[in-house]
Amino acid sequence: MAVESRGWVMKAYAESGRPTEDHLELRARRVATDAESIPDGQVAVQVLWVSIDPFLRSRMTGRLDGLSVDPYPLGQVITAFGAGRVINSKDENYTEGDIAIIPFCPVEEYCVLPSLSFRKVDASKGISPLEYLNALGVPGFAAWVGVHLIADPKAGENVFVSAAAGAVGMFAGQLAKLKGCRVVGSAGTDEKVNLLKDELNFDDAFNYNKETDFDVALSKYFPDGIDVYFENVGGEMLEAVLNHVNKRARIPLCGMISQYNQVWTERQGIRNLLNMVGKDVKMEGFMIGSHIHHFGDFAEDIEGYIREGKLVSKFKMNNGIESFLPSLVSLFSSSNVGKVIIEVNK
Amino acid sequence: MAVESRGWVMKAYAESGRPTEDHLELRARRVATDAESIPDGQVAVQVLWVSIDPFLRSRMTGRLDGLSVDPYPLGQVITAFGAGRVINSKDENYTEGDIAIIPFCPVEEYCVLPSLSFRKVDASKGISPLEYLNALGVPGFAAWVGVHLIADPKAGENVFVSAAAGAVGMFAGQLAKLKGCRVVGSAGTDEKVNLLKDELNFDDAFNYNKETDFDVALSKYFPDGIDVYFENVGGEMLEAVLNHVNKRARIPLCGMISQYNQVWTERQGIRNLLNMVGKDVKMEGFMIGSHIHHFGDFAEDIEGYIREGKLVSKFKMNNGIESFLPSLVSLFSSSNVGKVIIEVNK
Repeated sequence: MAVESRGWVMKAYAESGRPTEDHLELRARRVATDAESIPDGQVAVQVLWVSIDPFLRSRMTGRLDGLSVDPYPLGQVITAFGAGRVINSKDENYTEGDIAIIPFCPVEEYCVLPSLSFRKVDASKGISPLEYLNALGVPGFAAWVGVHLIADPKAGENVFVSAAAGAVGMFAGQLAKLKGCRVVGSAGTDEKVNLLKDELNFDDAFNYNKETDFDVALSKYFPDGIDVYFENVGGEMLEAVLNHVNKRARIPLCGMISQYNQVWTERQGIRNLLNMVGKDVKMEGFMIGSHIHHFGDFAEDIEGYIREGKLVSKFKMNNGIESFLPSLVSLFSSSNVGKVIIEVNK
Repeated sequence: MAVESRGWVMKAYAESGRPTEDHLELRARRVATDAESIPDGQVAVQVLWVSIDPFLRSRMTGRLDGLSVDPYPLGQVITAFGAGRVINSKDENYTEGDIAIIPFCPVEEYCVLPSLSFRKVDASKGISPLEYLNALGVPGFAAWVGVHLIADPKAGENVFVSAAAGAVGMFAGQLAKLKGCRVVGSAGTDEKVNLLKDELNFDDAFNYNKETDFDVALSKYFPDGIDVYFENVGGEMLEAVLNHVNKRARIPLCGMISQYNQVWTERQGIRNLLNMVGKDVKMEGFMIGSHIHHFGDFAEDIEGYIREGKLVSKFKMNNGIESFLPSLVSLFSSSNVGKVIIEVNK
């Protein structure tokens, strides 16, 4: 038995600018998902959800700078963090109906692959499988690594989170609040600013499209300076922050969404790094893969918070495999609230 | 009894560019150094040596950005790290003839001041008093903090030191060598490059005025990438390094000599900080004053190395109080080898 499966193929690299259908193409193929056709040790999967993360953009440049993630091989279906339903199994650990989290999930409707890196969703925990792509997935882990392992803020410290209504930003802010910090976020619309203050427990927030003089904004929202800056955007905002840091400030660099569509020589230069000397500032970049040995601690923390109702998750769900490309592009236009996921199959 | 004493007075701040006699003026005054004239608890000092350090430039800008050091008060004699001979004392801890290290030493020929922050040179240790302004002074401590406390390099790691023939750079390189690292330095003349390789035990060195394509140079000298970059210069070299860092590289920011004479908006922007994310790079600025609680450990380490003949110190000695201004300006022109000191009195 074979099903038709549409998937996104890397046709040509997009060195700069936003990727288009010149670079990514939705192609259909037939996938044999019956038990006889599956190799031993593999499973057939109906892909349910794919997590749309900024780092995917870096895999499409054909270069190794910046995030240093391997370029997608040309002519092949790309992969992303995702989840799927097992529809046939030749692997004793999986049976039909299991829901699996798939770190390198093909961005297509059906696939057959080894389950080596899968993580099975334990329904008895009562946690929505979608949460494994959000609070317990890439954005939650990125926020946790940046806040807990790198910034390690103390109660009462002043924490600034940029792109705070994005998937990572909202968890970073909430985790800092749970540590007793004063947390202020920046976001691109008034709707997001209200969400941060009203639903996500941020102490304050501002719309960077309205308060466009960042130096003035940071003076206003951080009269006592910034102790931790959770960096998601790069460019002008980072430069402004470096003029407002306190002694021994920490800046976990999670990503720089404003800079992903430029080659490095076109990116905005940061002119005031010398301030890091005078203020003993630490800036530390991180890829979550480098901290995977802490995943167990992270999951325990977050599952606890979820059970206690202490973490709010927001989703922006788009429908169908065809929504992958517009969903990815939307990450760079400040148009989403929370975690962007595409629902590939229901 | 009063002596004539010439000292450098801050006349006007030099926001950018090199300071001149428009900003600093050598003025003479009479200083009463006899016992009757000295207040209780104070000592009269004949200043012997003044350490010429780049951070002094930052105190002359009248601004608080960058190194965040207090501006020198206008109309007063400036201070620097120095040493002097006690010529009269109303302090029971000091007697005539003692040599004292003076962290905030007036840059003038004679002075009377409390000895609270003095450190007496213990002649029984057999260490030259001048060494307390070099290996055991500001440059030695800066190198030790950056190498030991921040970079913490492991044997076999690849360490790059810029301004390596400067006072801080030569100790940073030697300390990394003592930890078993492979160390390469950059400097501005062939003479300095030869010194680094022949006398200071560096594995290699290059002249950045000759090998001006830093990307090519770093590819050549670091075929296995850079694990630690001891940053003394800033600007173009830092940007080049960020394209050659290995996973988990550490970049202690000691200073950025190329950037001290510009206001921050005119400094060179670093465009490739995103590489820090992909490579899990840590960049950490430091002021030695923030690590003063480690001074004892530092002194023990360095005194041990000096006794064992494992550290080479180089000095550039200039004569007379009048040499202060040209000596300071010379720091920004790559014209010195080792620690620049002015000998105020013999």
